[in-house]
Amino acid sequence: MFIREIESFIEEDLGYDDVSCTIVPDRPAEAIIFTKEDCTVAGIDEAVSIFYYFGIQAETDFKDGDQLKKGDIIFRLKGGAVSILRAERISLNFLGHLSGIATLTRKCMDIARKHSETVRVACTRKTTPGIRKFEKLAVAAGGGDTHRFNLSDAVMIKDNHVKLMGIEAAIKEARKTSFTRKIEVEVESAEDAVFAAELGADIIMLDNMQPDGVKETISILNGKGLRESVLIEASGGISLENLEAYAKTGVDVISMGLLIHRSRWIDVSLEIVRPES
Amino acid sequence: MFIREIESFIEEDLGYDDVSCTIVPDRPAEAIIFTKEDCTVAGIDEAVSIFYYFGIQAETDFKDGDQLKKGDIIFRLKGGAVSILRAERISLNFLGHLSGIATLTRKCMDIARKHSETVRVACTRKTTPGIRKFEKLAVAAGGGDTHRFNLSDAVMIKDNHVKLMGIEAAIKEARKTSFTRKIEVEVESAEDAVFAAELGADIIMLDNMQPDGVKETISILNGKGLRESVLIEASGGISLENLEAYAKTGVDVISMGLLIHRSRWIDVSLEIVRPES
Amino acid sequence: MFIREIESFIEEDLGYDDVSCTIVPDRPAEAIIFTKEDCTVAGIDEAVSIFYYFGIQAETDFKDGDQLKKGDIIFRLKGGAVSILRAERISLNFLGHLSGIATLTRKCMDIARKHSETVRVACTRKTTPGIRKFEKLAVAAGGGDTHRFNLSDAVMIKDNHVKLMGIEAAIKEARKTSFTRKIEVEVESAEDAVFAAELGADIIMLDNMQPDGVKETISILNGKGLRESVLIEASGGISLENLEAYAKTGVDVISMGLLIHRSRWIDVSLEIVRPES
Amino acid sequence: MFIREIESFIEEDLGYDDVSCTIVPDRPAEAIIFTKEDCTVAGIDEAVSIFYYFGIQAETDFKDGDQLKKGDIIFRLKGGAVSILRAERISLNFLGHLSGIATLTRKCMDIARKHSETVRVACTRKTTPGIRKFEKLAVAAGGGDTHRFNLSDAVMIKDNHVKLMGIEAAIKEARKTSFTRKIEVEVESAEDAVFAAELGADIIMLDNMQPDGVKETISILNGKGLRESVLIEASGGISLENLEAYAKTGVDVISMGLLIHRSRWIDVSLEIVRPES
Amino acid sequence: MFIREIESFIEEDLGYDDVSCTIVPDRPAEAIIFTKEDCTVAGIDEAVSIFYYFGIQAETDFKDGDQLKKGDIIFRLKGGAVSILRAERISLNFLGHLSGIATLTRKCMDIARKHSETVRVACTRKTTPGIRKFEKLAVAAGGGDTHRFNLSDAVMIKDNHVKLMGIEAAIKEARKTSFTRKIEVEVESAEDAVFAAELGADIIMLDNMQPDGVKETISILNGKGLRESVLIEASGGISLENLEAYAKTGVDVISMGLLIHRSRWIDVSLEIVRPES
Amino acid sequence: MFIREIESFIEEDLGYDDVSCTIVPDRPAEAIIFTKEDCTVAGIDEAVSIFYYFGIQAETDFKDGDQLKKGDIIFRLKGGAVSILRAERISLNFLGHLSGIATLTRKCMDIARKHSETVRVACTRKTTPGIRKFEKLAVAAGGGDTHRFNLSDAVMIKDNHVKLMGIEAAIKEARKTSFTRKIEVEVESAEDAVFAAELGADIIMLDNMQPDGVKETISILNGKGLRESVLIEASGGISLENLEAYAKTGVDVISMGLLIHRSRWIDVSLEIVRPES
Repeated sequence: MFIREIESFIEEDLGYDDVSCTIVPDRPAEAIIFTKEDCTVAGIDEAVSIFYYFGIQAETDFKDGDQLKKGDIIFRLKGGAVSILRAERISLNFLGHLSGIATLTRKCMDIARKHSETVRVACTRKTTPGIRKFEKLAVAAGGGDTHRFNLSDAVMIKDNHVKLMGIEAAIKEARKTSFTRKIEVEVESAEDAVFAAELGADIIMLDNMQPDGVKETISILNGKGLRESVLIEASGGISLENLEAYAKTGVDVISMGLLIHRSRWIDVSLEIVRPES
Repeated sequence: MFIREIESFIEEDLGYDDVSCTIVPDRPAEAIIFTKEDCTVAGIDEAVSIFYYFGIQAETDFKDGDQLKKGDIIFRLKGGAVSILRAERISLNFLGHLSGIATLTRKCMDIARKHSETVRVACTRKTTPGIRKFEKLAVAAGGGDTHRFNLSDAVMIKDNHVKLMGIEAAIKEARKTSFTRKIEVEVESAEDAVFAAELGADIIMLDNMQPDGVKETISILNGKGLRESVLIEASGGISLENLEAYAKTGVDVISMGLLIHRSRWIDVSLEIVRPES
Repeated sequence: MFIREIESFIEEDLGYDDVSCTIVPDRPAEAIIFTKEDCTVAGIDEAVSIFYYFGIQAETDFKDGDQLKKGDIIFRLKGGAVSILRAERISLNFLGHLSGIATLTRKCMDIARKHSETVRVACTRKTTPGIRKFEKLAVAAGGGDTHRFNLSDAVMIKDNHVKLMGIEAAIKEARKTSFTRKIEVEVESAEDAVFAAELGADIIMLDNMQPDGVKETISILNGKGLRESVLIEASGGISLENLEAYAKTGVDVISMGLLIHRSRWIDVSLEIVRPES
Repeated sequence: MFIREIESFIEEDLGYDDVSCTIVPDRPAEAIIFTKEDCTVAGIDEAVSIFYYFGIQAETDFKDGDQLKKGDIIFRLKGGAVSILRAERISLNFLGHLSGIATLTRKCMDIARKHSETVRVACTRKTTPGIRKFEKLAVAAGGGDTHRFNLSDAVMIKDNHVKLMGIEAAIKEARKTSFTRKIEVEVESAEDAVFAAELGADIIMLDNMQPDGVKETISILNGKGLRESVLIEASGGISLENLEAYAKTGVDVISMGLLIHRSRWIDVSLEIVRPES
Repeated sequence: MFIREIESFIEEDLGYDDVSCTIVPDRPAEAIIFTKEDCTVAGIDEAVSIFYYFGIQAETDFKDGDQLKKGDIIFRLKGGAVSILRAERISLNFLGHLSGIATLTRKCMDIARKHSETVRVACTRKTTPGIRKFEKLAVAAGGGDTHRFNLSDAVMIKDNHVKLMGIEAAIKEARKTSFTRKIEVEVESAEDAVFAAELGADIIMLDNMQPDGVKETISILNGKGLRESVLIEASGGISLENLEAYAKTGVDVISMGLLIHRSRWIDVSLEIVRPES
Repeated sequence: MFIREIESFIEEDLGYDDVSCTIVPDRPAEAIIFTKEDCTVAGIDEAVSIFYYFGIQAETDFKDGDQLKKGDIIFRLKGGAVSILRAERISLNFLGHLSGIATLTRKCMDIARKHSETVRVACTRKTTPGIRKFEKLAVAAGGGDTHRFNLSDAVMIKDNHVKLMGIEAAIKEARKTSFTRKIEVEVESAEDAVFAAELGADIIMLDNMQPDGVKETISILNGKGLRESVLIEASGGISLENLEAYAKTGVDVISMGLLIHRSRWIDVSLEIVRPES
């Protein structure tokens, strides 16, 4: 995390004059951060950056992606009491929010991998404004795929693009952009999937297609000898309930906005352990 | 929203060279943004700021806090096709995320107000790093109370403060800070609630206390003639299930971190309506 | 002070190429910063941040709010000659400006406290653009009250608000905002003071009222049993000359824009002591 | 003023949620800004930038440096009531603070120019951190000279430089820097003044020298034919009381830190004139 | 260009008090910007952003990538004289520097395309710190390929990576990153090229290989049926002299750091045409 | 270099998720940076700042301006492998670009100084947007003069100013600005040079004048006793070919935009030396 970022998160939580912290005498203190529920942890690096900024020594036995049990101590902290109180909420908010994303991703990956050894569960660009970078890394911590970070990554031709210029022209234009980028096309039918594959798309996203449709589309692509040259992504309306069905289709990637927009925070807490009260 | 903020959200989503947008020819276009589910909308102002930055005309019949039905059109947009594609995900992410918070808050307020005409449901400082300001305003849109924005607002004396200096010293120090700030004390027993009220606290937060305990504490404060001089806040472990029980206790404020950390996004979508495909 | 802030203050004073510093050979040097007049010191933390950024060791026997005598050495510095020259004016400007504010505040507090053990002298939002945070902390160093830092703190209903919506509607709207905020109402008559107190204002500001009027208003509030439930603030046209008269009225807070807008800098100076010339 | 600057000044005064403004209904309003005392006005451009940002129409008959009489209306404003309340304190703080500096500068210039048609009164680098640029322009509005803006302007060799490397080496090093910069040397005796002039200094600053000493030094430089090739600046301990004596010495520039560090704000005020209450 | 960027470029060129501009009376003026030599123009959008910020009307008949003849008028400007002088150097620096890059790229593309209809000439990450985004777009304006913008784009496994972990482990790790990214491997021999292709690399960069070696490597890949599945990039030591030889090898991409680091500015100039002198 | 600057250069090169670096295991590593061609080095301080930010130990035997031979090792680095890969391109881009400028400047200085012991070769404001500060310091490293950094330095009256207000009015206005600034006038004839000198210009720039014209103008100024009071700068159309002719004219300063806009990068490279492959 950049110092610039750390300072902006601190400013958001402390305001102009953090009175709630400064009424406390600034003596040496120790604290622990622990989880109140099982989880896949994420946000370790972000928390370490924050502690470092405040001059707090932080020890941890974990790294992003590790499985934690309820009660596990994520950090043991030593530093000034005021500094620890200042760092408390900021670091907990990162750990709680990001571990929530990692945990949900882990759960989805476990479901999907039961039925396919190679399928990837990916997030989308539906991320909380301002912290996409951290949320995507939390998805990675949970074993998921980060997908595109922004519109400058792989060119994605979506429904609104197709509406504006047609699929063929869109792919043609996309191929003019840098050779370093993959081209992904969103289609809603097997016909369009074949068409896009023939036009040289690297990735084909089957949008809002039922598992049966996905399976059939893959079979058609196979039949035309186009399966190997493209990655197939299923997207739209995929939930914890139907994820298994998609995983069985032989698709390469299952993207799920819910990894982020339906995640809920993990309950993590900071406790001052010294001085004892 | 400051221009500085808008530009940083744009940069996050567009990257260096938004190829996915620029492959499209930049002709005049029209689009609608609509909701795919009933909700309490929030994020209208944020979206308007983004459209304005991109030179897109945006019309809306709604304001933050309005109740929307599935299918309602939130915005009608006119502008360059490229501009609309650039603004799409950023504005949707604000609308989806913030409406999710407003909707959950509205739901909690409705539950609570069934049993008390004046009780407030409030959020906490457990907010997504970087966008607290917007999330708290979404809580307000849902009829909730924003609570403290940061550590410089009302002085809150929490368990870790008490552990470090004791309740009496903490209140004494807190009173030395500006007369413009309220003092809130977190307590875990009726005794401490009485003690804090006698020491002149403006707000007493009953932490992790069962509804019965809350009711009894209020009754004891009443008996000692201290009820009128303080606001009582219940906090910790309050869920959709037990919210009703808390609302019945006669408490003034019920704070619930879950307004934000368990909210899920509302599904909103942008569709290009002209040129027709 | 954030690193971002330090760097912007440095850039302001150094420009692109601080030639005036860099013509000097960069050998180890020592310097002192001392005050040329008695004062209440402020700006110690700001100066320490600046020295730290430049890698200068800084020792001090003082903290913000201490009383200094002419000639007292505020800092003993060790570091590279170039670094010390670079930090010189920036740190002196903070110390001189902020100590000036603290000293004037101390003087006002001393006058006021002769006549009341609890009265507070407070500053206002008339602060130098860009450094309000530091100026308010200097007021606190001088024993004064910081009052509201910005428009998001305690809701203050001023003459222009009343003109736009009336006092009753304004208080009613104000009460809808967060329960964590106090509500202050500016009034110009005893009648309005009573009215505001009855409507539940937390603080009543008597605007441009003579000491006699303040005394009478307090007496009327007392008579109606409203005195205990509100804090009374006198504001407008209060000077060093009439401050005593206000302090005798029994008012809780006397706010004085002049703490900042009529303060003058304390004369502090940096002297290189090694190498000796 | 850059948009970046405007937004940071707004953020300082509004905070996260400017409740004090937003409780007001946002109907069309008109307001005036007027001065409560005679002054030399400054800050007009800064205020205009702020009004423009808020979409407020602002008309003025004045420009920086104009002489205003008590009661003069500086601005007539039209805009939303909320916007006007938001812009109020920020614009008034600029006008009050900067006009204070311009007025004091004007007063000093008037004193000095009685005795010399060409003498300049200049400020120094003793400016309020963060807004030097605006304060120096206020000095110019008052008819004064801005002197160096930062350490990258004209090379100034001060006592601490001389202590570290000697006057001759310092001038020699200074001459190696860009030909576009003037070289100024601070001296404490006529001998050093002559020495510096002979070494090619462009400006000689007579530091803490009494008016008699200044007159004599100029005479000696004259005698040696060195007067024409240098500008002479008197600095240190110059006050409103002894300014006249310095102006009579024939010196070119009189620099006075007090233009800024002893200035006091001009009392300016905003009044809502429509809707009438 | 973001407003934030524009303001930082302006600040760099104007400093605190742009005296050189403000001595001029601010009357309406007209100016032209023209090129003093034939070129492929770039920087049009950047210049338009700057003019827009200053409120200058700018008309142009050209867009990035157009071929210009000596004397062609790139912009016709109308606005305040002071504004035009302020915008002059900033806009010319963009036009001159970026058109230089576009012109050199165009030249290289013309050479390469004589011998291959599909070969791309690409730049590298050897770009001027701070303006890579603009330089890469200038390469695109010249018909070139932007290649990776930063280390988060396509994974590139370079010599130093191979040294640290071996080619096989590197590709294996790279494949674990997002499916949206291509994997490029830098090799120095035909053997390694084959190895990398077999391991599934998307792009193979032949580093510092002579044209003959490139041709042979392609032939070997062809023989093994691996040619179609990879893009081949030649890189290292490619100059205007040997570019033709590389273009003849059948390679897909020729990357040349010199597009940026050996480009020289195009001579563009601004002339005030009204008021006439 | 400010931390703010370092972080923005890092962000430009690393993007959101620097995958190309992070696939490497982060073990201790050592590397060298060396030059592949003779050069005058610049950028040492910038590179050191970058290494320091990444926690990399950097040893060097050189400082800006030193002459390096092909193969000279500029830096020996120790640190984590990932950190070294992250710092690689950013530091090389500074070293390569800035050393290119320093080397070309050195070459020009050597040519000019053969014919004049005091002549200065200076750059102009034709610099790459965003990094003028660093480029001008590279010119200084090569022995050149930085000339004005921005429009707030010495007042320069150019052709477009003269067109707008005439030379006499321009000088008169310029003299009203601070006494700390030099005044430079751009002229195209000996007559105007004499005129400007008589009006008190500090520097006269002979624009696009042939060497013979420069020589004659100086001779005329000499004849009128005006030579000593002004610095003479030749500018416009000066190249490596005609530089010698200008140096022989007796001019004080020769300014050459080409120091920057025709410089080409020096080829510097980073090699991992431990662990050995």
